[in-house]
Amino acid sequence: MLRIVTQMIEAEAELRRISERTQAEQHIHREATVREILQSVRRQGDRALLEYTAEFDQVELSPSELRVSGAELEAAYQAVSPQLLTALRLAKERIEAFHRQRVPSSWVMFPAPEIILGKQYRPVDRAGLYIPGGRAAYPSTVLMNAIPAQVAGVPEIVMVTPPGSDGSGGKGVNPAILVAAQEAGIQTIYRVGGAQAIGALAYGTETIPKVDVITGPGNIYVTLAKKQVYGTVGIDSLAGPSEVLIIADESANPIHLAADLLAQAEHDPLAAAILLTPDPKLAQQVQQAVATQVEAHPNRLLVEKSVANYGLIAIVPDLQTAAALSNLFAPEHLELQVADPWALLEPIRHAGAIFFGHHTPEAVGDYLAGPNHTLPTAGAARYASALGVETFLKHSSLIQYGPMALREVAGAIQALTQAEGLPAHGQSVQLRLEEDRS
Amino acid sequence: MLRIVTQMIEAEAELRRISERTQAEQHIHREATVREILQSVRRQGDRALLEYTAEFDQVELSPSELRVSGAELEAAYQAVSPQLLTALRLAKERIEAFHRQRVPSSWVMFPAPEIILGKQYRPVDRAGLYIPGGRAAYPSTVLMNAIPAQVAGVPEIVMVTPPGSDGSGGKGVNPAILVAAQEAGIQTIYRVGGAQAIGALAYGTETIPKVDVITGPGNIYVTLAKKQVYGTVGIDSLAGPSEVLIIADESANPIHLAADLLAQAEHDPLAAAILLTPDPKLAQQVQQAVATQVEAHPNRLLVEKSVANYGLIAIVPDLQTAAALSNLFAPEHLELQVADPWALLEPIRHAGAIFFGHHTPEAVGDYLAGPNHTLPTAGAARYASALGVETFLKHSSLIQYGPMALREVAGAIQALTQAEGLPAHGQSVQLRLEEDRS
Repeated sequence: MLRIVTQMIEAEAELRRISERTQAEQHIHREATVREILQSVRRQGDRALLEYTAEFDQVELSPSELRVSGAELEAAYQAVSPQLLTALRLAKERIEAFHRQRVPSSWVMFPAPEIILGKQYRPVDRAGLYIPGGRAAYPSTVLMNAIPAQVAGVPEIVMVTPPGSDGSGGKGVNPAILVAAQEAGIQTIYRVGGAQAIGALAYGTETIPKVDVITGPGNIYVTLAKKQVYGTVGIDSLAGPSEVLIIADESANPIHLAADLLAQAEHDPLAAAILLTPDPKLAQQVQQAVATQVEAHPNRLLVEKSVANYGLIAIVPDLQTAAALSNLFAPEHLELQVADPWALLEPIRHAGAIFFGHHTPEAVGDYLAGPNHTLPTAGAARYASALGVETFLKHSSLIQYGPMALREVAGAIQALTQAEGLPAHGQSVQLRLEEDRS
Repeated sequence: MLRIVTQMIEAEAELRRISERTQAEQHIHREATVREILQSVRRQGDRALLEYTAEFDQVELSPSELRVSGAELEAAYQAVSPQLLTALRLAKERIEAFHRQRVPSSWVMFPAPEIILGKQYRPVDRAGLYIPGGRAAYPSTVLMNAIPAQVAGVPEIVMVTPPGSDGSGGKGVNPAILVAAQEAGIQTIYRVGGAQAIGALAYGTETIPKVDVITGPGNIYVTLAKKQVYGTVGIDSLAGPSEVLIIADESANPIHLAADLLAQAEHDPLAAAILLTPDPKLAQQVQQAVATQVEAHPNRLLVEKSVANYGLIAIVPDLQTAAALSNLFAPEHLELQVADPWALLEPIRHAGAIFFGHHTPEAVGDYLAGPNHTLPTAGAARYASALGVETFLKHSSLIQYGPMALREVAGAIQALTQAEGLPAHGQSVQLRLEEDRS
């Protein structure tokens, strides 16, 4: 049953409870496990990978089987439907077009005589994508991680994903994932998952090269491993379970709202699906429609669980209050199913992605609208953004001063180096002035 | 003595050793200490802050003394020289002008009928700046952190810095820091440092508000605390000790090179100062000049130590090899003191900031050229960039589809939801099509 709350204080408390459903503090013992796994991979390389794969994935691999072979890559194309291939290509085209917008590029300026300033952007040398196995083995995730790296111009992109995601219980990888990877230009794929895969990408092994940036979602062990290797490599974010918050008024269709809430709930028992509406009648109708649609869902037990634990309808005084509550939650996905959705944008301060109007279910953005579906969760939208081309770029500041330009600022630098007690800093400027005088 | 190596294999090994001088693995026991401090601050708020300040800083504060008073802020202006105030204002002007360049702004596009896509940029609600005490209490650091936050439009910026940085041994804060903060528009300053200050900013206490992003350098406890709270808040980076790598040819002045190397070495016993040159004569002259300048340095013992441990001159076959070695090290600061420095930019792939030519000592960029002096260290330039306005901005993806646009992609979405086993995702699209038909 999807609960309805009507008091603002209760709504706030519920939103806070849902937002804090996965606090890092619960994972201290897992952190120690992850640290041990990372250290083993760092010290023992492939050997540790094979041992952990046998232990955690119940799959025995030889070192040469770590990398997915060319024959498997080719065979994957035979295993997917023409419809899926067409869909992947459409998705790739739209995602790539969006990510090619506003890519930052290098620049210089000449603010005064003898002075050049600027920034030079470069891609990282090597990126590693983590693609989960099991229930979350999604080809769309491959596209959403690989395409920004390609658009950034990363010369070498590798992918890791656990064995067994083809459902064989063996070594195989879901063919849809292998096809998505190849469509996105990735040929180097290793069948290894979990914290051990993150360790391999961060430190390198005999088979798997060390990368500069690791992106992609995973379970709690993968997330804790990404946090631990952050600083040795760059990472995209610490992804938590998915969530949607919908603001709807009487113009919305309760059947559609229910479907959107369920589309979130079906991801994971920890997924959160929230509706804020000023319309009590709509709230009742959605509650009823959710109950009906849950009954019909092939994965009813999972959906029931997430709806019961992390589903919520809050009846709010007005849309401005809904926006304020949404800012408190800072949702990963925000749907504005109201008569004038663009009027509601102004008060929204934090959201990973915003879906406008009655014909933009989140699924459009999940798959192919173009913007990235890797978004900040658990309130991280307060300070973080979608994965993007920038995740795979970095810049160097460029600075040139000439002798006269240096002389003009020498006094100011001297005053600052004295205040900071750094005499050699001052000397590095003063010695250059003396030479100019001679 | 600044060592000279001539074999490439030795140079590479030395650069790797210097790069790895501060590996996170050395800090496992400190991580536990930091975790305990963060938990205490989270649970006990101000009380924990005051206890840790008494323990670590030997300063007894009452809760009302945590915040630097208006009277102290005013008095700070009397304690700094007119030269320093002028210098801070010049630095502020140039840093602000540079950071106002290429600030990302919101946009939408209309790629096809009924489709709107875009990004909306917003500043974070609240930023917290950490400014170290002791030897590293630098007013320039205040400007470099505060100005990007101001340019981003962050409505509330607070600063934390340990008591005692005025050298009184008491509660006072270095007046140059208080003046720099006010010049940059910050009035809310708390006298607390260390991991406990990071905890206060991440979780909030009775006195100190919870922020969304924490930036600024600190000692190893501050850095470990930033890593642990990352995910609860955003952070700028995990700063390590400072470093410079200089590539120079026979056109460079050995006295200037020596001064630049010492300007790095004087920061910290862990600071690294490296020269790569194809000119053996220059190498000898720099070694001699460093010895002479070290003798004259007021902080001779510290400088000797960092030069001996983490200083290096490598004689390389040519400038291209120097660029390759520099990429291996991925230096925070890179000086190109060669006859044609811009010709050497192409092969440089990783560097936090690049200083061109003979009249651009790093000190120019440290203080006032404009680009940020908060830069990636310890090889992080392979994947990370300078602190900037983006550190305080985030964006929401904007997506709107109309009914016909949705219908056109419905088949592709259906194929993808089936491949991913997410039927409610498909339903959320299909149900909307049925309504359109009726």
